Amino acid sequence: MTAEIITIGDEILIGQIIDSNSAWIAERLNQIGIAVGRIVSVSDQHEAIKIALSEASARTGLVIITGGLGPTDDDRTRTAICEYFNSGIRFDDAIYRHIESLLKGRGVEINNRNRKQAEVPDNCRVVHNPAGTAPGMWFEQNKVDYLFLPGVPFEMKAIMENVLPEWKKRYAGQVIVHRTILTQGIPESSMAKILESWEQQLPASVSLAYLPSPGILRLRLTSHGTSDKDVQDIINKEVNKVKKIIPEAIYGYYNDTLEKVVGKLLVDRKAWLATAESCTGGTIASMITSVPGSSAYFRGCLVAYANDVKTALLGVFPATIEHKGAVSQQVVESMALGIMRLMESDYSIAVSGIAGPDGGTDEKPIGLVWIAVGSPGGVRSEKFQYGEDRGRNITRASISALNMLRKEILKSEMK
Amino acid sequence: MTAEIITIGDEILIGQIIDSNSAWIAERLNQIGIAVGRIVSVSDQHEAIKIALSEASARTGLVIITGGLGPTDDDRTRTAICEYFNSGIRFDDAIYRHIESLLKGRGVEINNRNRKQAEVPDNCRVVHNPAGTAPGMWFEQNKVDYLFLPGVPFEMKAIMENVLPEWKKRYAGQVIVHRTILTQGIPESSMAKILESWEQQLPASVSLAYLPSPGILRLRLTSHGTSDKDVQDIINKEVNKVKKIIPEAIYGYYNDTLEKVVGKLLVDRKAWLATAESCTGGTIASMITSVPGSSAYFRGCLVAYANDVKTALLGVFPATIEHKGAVSQQVVESMALGIMRLMESDYSIAVSGIAGPDGGTDEKPIGLVWIAVGSPGGVRSEKFQYGEDRGRNITRASISALNMLRKEILKSEMK
Repeated sequence: MTAEIITIGDEILIGQIIDSNSAWIAERLNQIGIAVGRIVSVSDQHEAIKIALSEASARTGLVIITGGLGPTDDDRTRTAICEYFNSGIRFDDAIYRHIESLLKGRGVEINNRNRKQAEVPDNCRVVHNPAGTAPGMWFEQNKVDYLFLPGVPFEMKAIMENVLPEWKKRYAGQVIVHRTILTQGIPESSMAKILESWEQQLPASVSLAYLPSPGILRLRLTSHGTSDKDVQDIINKEVNKVKKIIPEAIYGYYNDTLEKVVGKLLVDRKAWLATAESCTGGTIASMITSVPGSSAYFRGCLVAYANDVKTALLGVFPATIEHKGAVSQQVVESMALGIMRLMESDYSIAVSGIAGPDGGTDEKPIGLVWIAVGSPGGVRSEKFQYGEDRGRNITRASISALNMLRKEILKSEMK
Repeated sequence: MTAEIITIGDEILIGQIIDSNSAWIAERLNQIGIAVGRIVSVSDQHEAIKIALSEASARTGLVIITGGLGPTDDDRTRTAICEYFNSGIRFDDAIYRHIESLLKGRGVEINNRNRKQAEVPDNCRVVHNPAGTAPGMWFEQNKVDYLFLPGVPFEMKAIMENVLPEWKKRYAGQVIVHRTILTQGIPESSMAKILESWEQQLPASVSLAYLPSPGILRLRLTSHGTSDKDVQDIINKEVNKVKKIIPEAIYGYYNDTLEKVVGKLLVDRKAWLATAESCTGGTIASMITSVPGSSAYFRGCLVAYANDVKTALLGVFPATIEHKGAVSQQVVESMALGIMRLMESDYSIAVSGIAGPDGGTDEKPIGLVWIAVGSPGGVRSEKFQYGEDRGRNITRASISALNMLRKEILKSEMK
C-alpha cells in the first residue's frame, strides 16, 4: 500500500511556512506499514485542489490532505471538497457542541466563523478533533480513501491518531523497517570511506542512506519483507557490524537526541548538570530542558554573554580574559569549573566562541569555539573550527558540547 | 511565469527530514516575480525522478530540483539525470580543483567519492557551489529550464544565489507583492472578528490569509499587477488601516522576529537586558542571542531550574517559594528584580511555569505560566494559561515574554 499526501496552501508555495505536517504523517504511516509515494503541495485555489485530488486518486488508494480547514475566510478547501465529491452541506450538532465547550475552556466567545466549522459535507465520515475546532473529514469514493485534516500541526496529529489504528488493520501488508544510526563528529565523506567495505557487503535487500545535518550525520538502513522478525534480524545484524566499526561516534538511534541520551545517563547516575554558555547563548540549556523530567538532573545555566558576568559570577580572572581572550582554553575551563561551584553540580558544560558574523580576527576567526566539560574527575576541553554561519555555528557547538559530555560520562565509568 | 519545485529523497517520504529547502526557494523566487505553482517530493528511484521531471515540464518552463547530489552512494539523481537528458559524463577540472581546495581548508583528505562529484553530465551548464563540493547543474531542453541543486540547505542556497540575478532579468513580468503583518496575543477567530468589517471592504485585487503558529498570528496581504509602485500603494493603504485597528498587537512585518524587534529597541536606547528563566530553560536567551550583535544589549541569563538556584542567586526568599510555590506572581517578580541586580541590567524578563507533561495540580495545571518584566520603572507581571504540550508551552511563553518586554519598553517611553 502506497499513500500520497497533499498539502494545500498558498503560504507553502510562497515559502512563508515550511511544510512540517507531511514529514510527521509520512513517519506515522511508515510505522504502520504504509509507504508514501509522493507529497504534493498546491495552491488553495479550487481548480488546483481538484486537479491534485484527481491525479493522486489515479495513482493510489489512500490520499491524506492537510490545510485549508480553519475558521477564517481564506479557507477554500471545504467548498472545493463539496464540488469534488458532489456533496451538500449539513450542520453537525456534535461538532458544534465540541467547539462550544472547547472555546469556553479557553475563555473565547463563540462566533459565526466558529459556527461555520460545524458545517460539514453530507457524504463524509466526521473524524473527531480533540485538539481543536476543525474536524477531520473522511471520504470514500471509487475505492479511494481521502482524509482531510486541518493544517494546524497539533490538530492534524490529534485527528490522525484517531484513524491510524483502523488503517493499520485495513492496510497491514508488507513490513518496512527503517533503522537510523545517529552519529556525531565524523563528516559525511570520511564516514563513507570508513564504512566502504561494510557497505559493499550489504545484502541486496538492505539499502543505506547518509543524512547529514549541522553537527550530526544519520545513517539510515532500510529493508522490507513479509516477516517483521526476519527483516528486523537482517537489520540488527548490520547495525551490530556498524557499531563495531564506529563505536565512539554513535550516540543513539532513530529519533534519539543527544539531550535525551545525556539526560538518561545523568538520571541513571543521580548526577547533576549545569552549563555556562557564552556564544551558544542558552541553546544548550534550552535543548536539555526541552526533555520532560530534566529538572531531575539539570541545576541550571548561566549565559555569561558579558565578560564581567564571567568574572563576577563564574570566577574567571579578569587577567585571564585580558591576556588570553574570552575565547580561549583557559577561560572556558575556568567557566566549566566556575559553574560547577556556583550551581553545585557534578558535571558541567562551558562554551565560548565567535559565532559571527562579527568579531573574527586573523588569530581567532569566526567559527572558532572552545568547549570544556567539567566532571568529578576534573575538566577537559577541546577546540573546534566551524564555518561562517552564526546559526549553524551555534547548533554545531551545542551538539558537539553535548557529545563531549556524553563521552566524558561514559569514560569516567570505565575507570 | 510559474515555476515548480521537485525535492528528491526517500528521507522526505519516510518523514525523516522536513523539506525546508522548498520554502526558501519559493520565497526567493517570489521576490523576483516568479510564482511557484507546485512543490512535489518524490523517491530517489530512477523512474520516480524521471516521471516527476516529465510531468513538471508539461506544466511549466522552469523546474528547480533539490536533493540526491551528495558524495555518498545513495545518490541516484545524477544517473537519472543522464538518462533523462540523454547525456554522457565528463570530468570537470575546475570543479575538481574547487573540491580539493575546499576539503584542504577543512583538513579533510580528498577521496574517490569526492572525485565523483567532479563528474558532470556533458550537456549541462555547471553552476558554481561556493559552499560545498556538489555543483549546481542547469539544463535547457524543449524551452524548459531545469536547475539541479544538492539537498544540503546552505549549499543549495549558495548556488541559487548565483542564478537568481539572471532569472530576474529573464522572467521579469508580473509584480507580486506579499506583505505580512506579525501579531501577538489575539487568537485567530477573535482576530477575524475584529478585522471583519475591514476585510469586507478589501479591494478585489487584494487577498488576505491568516497564518497561525504557536504564540504568533501572521496576516498576509497579497496583490499583483504590472506596476510595482501601484501594487505597493494599494497594499500600504490597507496595512495602514490594520495598524489603526490593532496597534498594540502588531510587533513587526514580514520576517521580523520579536527578538530582533526587541534588540533594536534596546540598542537604540543603549539599555541592557538580562533574563531569569525557569520553565523556558534558556529558550528566551537563545532567541535573543540568535541575533547578530546581541552582545551590545544582552548581559546574560540565569536558568534557575532548581529552586535553590532561585534563592541563592536571584534572592528569592525560600519562604515565598514555600508559601506561594515556585510558579507564582511573587516568585516571578522577585526573579525579575533579582536578575536585574545580579546582572546589572536595565530591563529583565523572568518566567516560571509548568511546561508539562508532569507537575500539574488542580490549582496549578500544566500550561500555567507567570511572566514578569523588570524595567527602570519597576516590575510588571502577567499570568498565562497555555495547553498541554511542553514544547508549545515553552515557545508560547518565550514569545509572550518578549512581547511583554517590547510593550513595556515602548510604554516607558510614553510617560
